[in-house]
Amino acid sequence: MSETVHAERRRDAIDERIEAHVRANLERYVASLVELCASPSISAEDRALPETAALVARVMGDFGIEARVMPTPGAPAVVAALPGRSSRRLLVYNHYDVQPVDPLDEWVDPPFEPTRRDGRLVARGVADDKGDLIVRLAAVEALRAVDPELPLPITFLVEGQEEIDGPAIGEFIRDQAELLACDVAFGEAGSLTPSGRPEIVLGVKGMLYVEIEARGPAAGPVIDAHSSVAPVVENPAWVLVRALASLRDVDGRVRIAGFYDRVRPFDDVDRAALASLPGDVERELRASFGVSRFLDGVSGAALAERLYGAPTCTIAGLRSGYAGPGIKTVLPSVATAKIDFRLVPDQRPEEILELLRRHLADEGFDNVVVRALTTTVVPARTPPDDPLVLRVVEITRDWYGIEPVVVPMSPGGQIFEPFLSVLGAPTMFGGVRPSGGNAHAPNEFIEIDSLVPAICFTAHLFRQLAE
Amino acid sequence: MSETVHAERRRDAIDERIEAHVRANLERYVASLVELCASPSISAEDRALPETAALVARVMGDFGIEARVMPTPGAPAVVAALPGRSSRRLLVYNHYDVQPVDPLDEWVDPPFEPTRRDGRLVARGVADDKGDLIVRLAAVEALRAVDPELPLPITFLVEGQEEIDGPAIGEFIRDQAELLACDVAFGEAGSLTPSGRPEIVLGVKGMLYVEIEARGPAAGPVIDAHSSVAPVVENPAWVLVRALASLRDVDGRVRIAGFYDRVRPFDDVDRAALASLPGDVERELRASFGVSRFLDGVSGAALAERLYGAPTCTIAGLRSGYAGPGIKTVLPSVATAKIDFRLVPDQRPEEILELLRRHLADEGFDNVVVRALTTTVVPARTPPDDPLVLRVVEITRDWYGIEPVVVPMSPGGQIFEPFLSVLGAPTMFGGVRPSGGNAHAPNEFIEIDSLVPAICFTAHLFRQLAE
Repeated sequence: MSETVHAERRRDAIDERIEAHVRANLERYVASLVELCASPSISAEDRALPETAALVARVMGDFGIEARVMPTPGAPAVVAALPGRSSRRLLVYNHYDVQPVDPLDEWVDPPFEPTRRDGRLVARGVADDKGDLIVRLAAVEALRAVDPELPLPITFLVEGQEEIDGPAIGEFIRDQAELLACDVAFGEAGSLTPSGRPEIVLGVKGMLYVEIEARGPAAGPVIDAHSSVAPVVENPAWVLVRALASLRDVDGRVRIAGFYDRVRPFDDVDRAALASLPGDVERELRASFGVSRFLDGVSGAALAERLYGAPTCTIAGLRSGYAGPGIKTVLPSVATAKIDFRLVPDQRPEEILELLRRHLADEGFDNVVVRALTTTVVPARTPPDDPLVLRVVEITRDWYGIEPVVVPMSPGGQIFEPFLSVLGAPTMFGGVRPSGGNAHAPNEFIEIDSLVPAICFTAHLFRQLAE
Repeated sequence: MSETVHAERRRDAIDERIEAHVRANLERYVASLVELCASPSISAEDRALPETAALVARVMGDFGIEARVMPTPGAPAVVAALPGRSSRRLLVYNHYDVQPVDPLDEWVDPPFEPTRRDGRLVARGVADDKGDLIVRLAAVEALRAVDPELPLPITFLVEGQEEIDGPAIGEFIRDQAELLACDVAFGEAGSLTPSGRPEIVLGVKGMLYVEIEARGPAAGPVIDAHSSVAPVVENPAWVLVRALASLRDVDGRVRIAGFYDRVRPFDDVDRAALASLPGDVERELRASFGVSRFLDGVSGAALAERLYGAPTCTIAGLRSGYAGPGIKTVLPSVATAKIDFRLVPDQRPEEILELLRRHLADEGFDNVVVRALTTTVVPARTPPDDPLVLRVVEITRDWYGIEPVVVPMSPGGQIFEPFLSVLGAPTMFGGVRPSGGNAHAPNEFIEIDSLVPAICFTAHLFRQLAE
């Protein structure tokens, strides 16, 4: 598939004036982003969340956006409801929380001391999702600089527990359905493929995240023991290894009975969208992760369908016994795994949890405990033929002069489901984020030069969507 | 089997004078032990080893024993060669290094701030093996207080890499075979069973300790990745789990082809010795580790034979990805296990390492790396009918008034093999250590009251062994 730009961008005088404003104010936007990224808002550690919510509201004020911090059953949300000309109402969603920084020793710069390095801004959260928020704030500011009345009403919803998939935001949306009412909703950010092609994502996978723990007495000793008793005392680490090995086969297929029963296969519309995916997904994965062979040997179209459509069972962490330097001859008293299940429509996290527990019991793992850490992210998708989806695709195509990549369902999870089921709004990852990388990994970054085009397109999209 | 003491102890006036000396000097011995235990000589971390060797030599000087620190290819050894009346020469072996302190947060008191608590002395290394060294030093001092000429020549050998099974001491013994020449050798300590019955161990298991690591490219990503790529990018944690699961079955039997080929079964003499083991091994294990069911359902005589005679494959540590609080949706780039194989005659560590590597290759784990951390501890046993073994049994029986437990092979590993093969000396765990516990675990301790009888018996044994 050709990546050549076939058409001139459809830009008008307003776009030009917006770009001039953005260029003139770029350093101020970067300074705001630096300020946001210096706040260590790690939701997994319940760290600095109210302070960061207050900071977000203050920074939004710097962009001329009056926001308020609102309590939720979890971390505070920040909401701003801006009036506009059109009857079509847009909701934009971002989050101010970030992933943990572990392994800290792989960071070149301290993760909460944002650093400019080789044209990049490096910090935890700069790509996911604080940079994306700044892009949208700057787009609104630039639009208002050109015309004080926004082209359409825009409601900002910025939450603080996205990275732990906290359920509070779902409850908040239900409680504040009137305040948040909208005709179309944008998730945290659209993006560009590595070759610069815009990507519009229409759905997200759901998530079940659990801790599986094996410990004594029957599974092994109640305190760490000398390994000399290993001939007769069971080792929880072995129990955990066997329990985990029973969950997935060598090709990545989950062995839990019933796991795939509710998986809704992609239909012809979905497959057509997948077929429009650029051929570089595979190359990008090879380059990014240094992988020479993919799971189950997949490649090409099969790889894309697997990546976007398959539910997974992933070991995110393992911990037991001694892992320091050298030798320690210990029989551990406890062994723990963190497991991340990505689910697809119509799997339900609570039901998969029940199937997991039944599987472990059926396989004889009576002394293995499953603790659910999140069960609230339900997989959800917007129909690819929704009129507002088609409109966003059209605006994006016209701006970039190339057919956008329309992804039926993102491999990453996010909170689409309340937007679809509570607000009834077609939901997609709209706009475009700055280019960057290492989200959820050390040395997260964005390219500073990519901020201007991201802001300009976002402003253009907001404007065109009003019509 | 009855644990009743059937005979009066055979004590004479010299034993009485020795006990008086020990009681009068006990607080000084405890002070020396506190001083040794305050030195954080963790060999796995190469920590404070030369300083502790120098401290050991100085403390030995406090007991009137002129010792010298001697270089080895590893940590320094401390040697003292004391003249004595008999032509029968005794070598006693101890070690000044200790296990790591991890998990530190389970210690009630800091591990290197020895603390008296409820009649106990609590510190890392107090039971394994600094307390045992103090018992022998005090025994020599007490013997000399009664008679300046020792009943037999005694050579002390105190090394600093026992807990990591460092090979240097084997080389040192080969190089210094003349200096260390002896007719009988005692390992780090004999002990009493929980019911107070003396135990004489005649052999030790060998050890192969390895790290098994799975990492990219083909086994997974080269850096930690977002778990959204899990449908197509292999996860090293899954590779490691499958590799480990292939090593051992649910009953504890090792699945590596050829693993058991060289195992020399116990003969009738060994089985007779095992049959004399007290019936409380099983009860002790149940009480110590809170275990309700043993591996493979063994109990009674089968449990003892398994405990003392079976080689093992033990997961001592597991580490991969995120193990902090809450949720992190990461695909780890690396997963590591520490594995401790306890071997029995005539298994050879180097050969088992080769079998392990071949097993992993045969099972298709091409991207799993095996790093050997120790291969030098070879299993070894002294014949149970050696005349000096029978003499030690007799002296011990007479003192305690009960038949000693003679164990053909200890489940814990130690460096018997060089004593047997290089020095040609019948080797056993002689004397008795103070009662205590939590060796290799948090809150290691000895009972302070148990020092006096341990020292008195050790002095008696040294004296009687001269005849």
